[in-house]
Amino acid sequence: MGAGMAKSIAICAVGDELLAGAHPDLNSPFLARALLEMGHEVRQVIVVGDDEALIAESVKRLARSAQLVFVTGGLGPTLDDVTRHGVARAVESELVTSPEALAQIEAWYARSRREMPGSNLRQALVPKGAKVLFNPTGTAPGFEVACGTSRVLVLPGPPAELQAIWSEVVEPLLIASAPVECVRLARSFHLQGLSESVFADQCGDWLGRDENPLLGVAVARGVLTVRCVARGQNEDQVQELLDARADQLRQRFDQWIFSQDTSDPAEVLVRLLEQRGETISCAESCTGGLLSAALTGVPGASAVFSVAHTVYSANAKQDVLGVPEHLLRDHGAVSEQVAGAMALGAAERTGAHLALSISGIAGPEGGTPERPVGLVTFGVCYRGRVWTGKRNWAPLAGREQIRVWATSHALVRGIRALEGRLDFDQSS
Amino acid sequence: MGAGMAKSIAICAVGDELLAGAHPDLNSPFLARALLEMGHEVRQVIVVGDDEALIAESVKRLARSAQLVFVTGGLGPTLDDVTRHGVARAVESELVTSPEALAQIEAWYARSRREMPGSNLRQALVPKGAKVLFNPTGTAPGFEVACGTSRVLVLPGPPAELQAIWSEVVEPLLIASAPVECVRLARSFHLQGLSESVFADQCGDWLGRDENPLLGVAVARGVLTVRCVARGQNEDQVQELLDARADQLRQRFDQWIFSQDTSDPAEVLVRLLEQRGETISCAESCTGGLLSAALTGVPGASAVFSVAHTVYSANAKQDVLGVPEHLLRDHGAVSEQVAGAMALGAAERTGAHLALSISGIAGPEGGTPERPVGLVTFGVCYRGRVWTGKRNWAPLAGREQIRVWATSHALVRGIRALEGRLDFDQSS
Repeated sequence: MGAGMAKSIAICAVGDELLAGAHPDLNSPFLARALLEMGHEVRQVIVVGDDEALIAESVKRLARSAQLVFVTGGLGPTLDDVTRHGVARAVESELVTSPEALAQIEAWYARSRREMPGSNLRQALVPKGAKVLFNPTGTAPGFEVACGTSRVLVLPGPPAELQAIWSEVVEPLLIASAPVECVRLARSFHLQGLSESVFADQCGDWLGRDENPLLGVAVARGVLTVRCVARGQNEDQVQELLDARADQLRQRFDQWIFSQDTSDPAEVLVRLLEQRGETISCAESCTGGLLSAALTGVPGASAVFSVAHTVYSANAKQDVLGVPEHLLRDHGAVSEQVAGAMALGAAERTGAHLALSISGIAGPEGGTPERPVGLVTFGVCYRGRVWTGKRNWAPLAGREQIRVWATSHALVRGIRALEGRLDFDQSS
Repeated sequence: MGAGMAKSIAICAVGDELLAGAHPDLNSPFLARALLEMGHEVRQVIVVGDDEALIAESVKRLARSAQLVFVTGGLGPTLDDVTRHGVARAVESELVTSPEALAQIEAWYARSRREMPGSNLRQALVPKGAKVLFNPTGTAPGFEVACGTSRVLVLPGPPAELQAIWSEVVEPLLIASAPVECVRLARSFHLQGLSESVFADQCGDWLGRDENPLLGVAVARGVLTVRCVARGQNEDQVQELLDARADQLRQRFDQWIFSQDTSDPAEVLVRLLEQRGETISCAESCTGGLLSAALTGVPGASAVFSVAHTVYSANAKQDVLGVPEHLLRDHGAVSEQVAGAMALGAAERTGAHLALSISGIAGPEGGTPERPVGLVTFGVCYRGRVWTGKRNWAPLAGREQIRVWATSHALVRGIRALEGRLDFDQSS
């Protein structure tokens, strides 16, 4: 256990569906990460089915070595959910109806304007003496009981409910009862265009588990998210630690960072356009609508987005966007020249201030030695000025990955154009 | 344990990264599902860090109650990987260099035309008396040892390696050593438009864990996949069991089944169009490109797909697709009338045989009492005939879910149109 580690923690995840292989246990990684950021290390996870005896045995055993035991799942209203029975057996207590839990369930049904089925009465049962934990989004309250010298926290299984009860109830509870280190602050950075391993190579010790701030890295949809969490005894000290590491990160990785708020470059771009009262359009070939779908996935996109075109064939590029035939003939559909003409055509035909275009070879067919699968060309037209560029993801990626990475790349080129950080002097 | 269940099985997944919350343990669900299909039930999964003592203790304990124990991960060449040491301690044996394992590792490096680093010698260590299991894709061989009366199978952690060694080595090994039931056959059905709970309600006993065929249900992107696996002593018997259940499923759920081959309705639709030499276009409002992206996500889509339009604003619906202004004024942009005109306009302007349109309110803003968030209207124009329809997913779903469900729904309407199963008489 590292120097900064405060408590030993174990998790018991309950559910037949986890053992039947229907889906992985996502709650334990969520809890483990959230706890690690608080300076607690999870030492063991047990996954068991909806089996009262096995739940009881697992909780008892985990409580012997861990100071804090989380139990997740199996708090539903149906007879196959027996977590509360298993925990009661582990702590040698009887189940009683908690008026507080019952009131919470009744309030949930009142909010939903539905009648409470009788089966939900079961969800108000907790081991005698347990402290009820309010579930902000579902009908199953959580609860906390003592098992020997350990605290056992029992939480609902649906990930949305678990995450809500964690952040609104359990995390504040743990912070309030933490003995020394109690201040922690987090800051995130979202990068595009850098792989996890290249990032790690340039980070050195910063990624160590005992570092403070602790750095966590996650990759999704071509975006690398770095989360820094600093811990300490008072806010000034923690803020200082965090500021220092943030400065170092910005010095080293500035050209890849596109946001500190969201991992979604589409959201950053839509908000920037909103602030300026500007509009955007897209012209897509190999991504076939993904770029447009990413932008319209942002709530409120209609303020900046009106129309976009998927032009998959060469004819469509000519007919719909007016790409000159000679460019297609001389350079091919996957070329910076054509990508630039697509962006220009989209801007002119739609009147949008900013137009983004993508033309590439996503595979698995269609590659040539000069234009391999993985080659993607990009165009940006912003207020009449055109920039083009390309990326070659061969032979790393499959069709879907190429499409997703190309989408993120185009969005970040759009952000850079608005920021004045896209070099239009190198344009075609 | 159910009547059909043959062996009790436990899994010990090893890896600090699993406990740090970096990613979920995907190997255990994979093994659990594969084993369940063979008629074996996984009773418990333990996830532990790279900790020799804890690995030893966990394996010993699991071997006391399970006949078969799988251990995954921690077989890498670096010093932090101690699974082989932990297992050796559990079975009270010493680690020895296996000439067979060493030969496999050397062969792997020869195939990769790379020099073997000295650290890989570590991967040739196995507990004395262990049987080495060939790893088809990586450098870490697996191995099998006895622990009391249990068999302990130790497998590499990277999911691609685990899955390869499972299907090429471990599964045949288990089938060969299975006492009676050894034939198993699977068939899948993919449904759209039916929730998991409604499906379960109409299935009755078929979903029981002791049923043969065993049914598994998974939901993703608005598509419900039902997998039936039958087991028995010979192929005829198993085939008969499977045919009977398949007939019953088709009788009860025919209107929702769109494929037995793929869970992706876009792929079904692209293949159908290819067979007929027909083409498709899309006109999207609230899905903003997702439908077009789904179709172009299918390799080879360029044979049937050339151009599509995202028309997010009312103006764009008029300008780009020629939706008559009076329809927008009288019925609103989210109406069957406008959706129908969008599909007709898309077919006429692009010349595609089939055009699909979507117009809806994905939220979170923009809903009214008559047109709540979650209302989506659809249009299909096939060879000049127009069908329209709507769905109301209020108040179940969030923005992204509504967009994804609408996309799947539109694709299956397109499939039904080609199959002649879409009722154009009810069209607008």
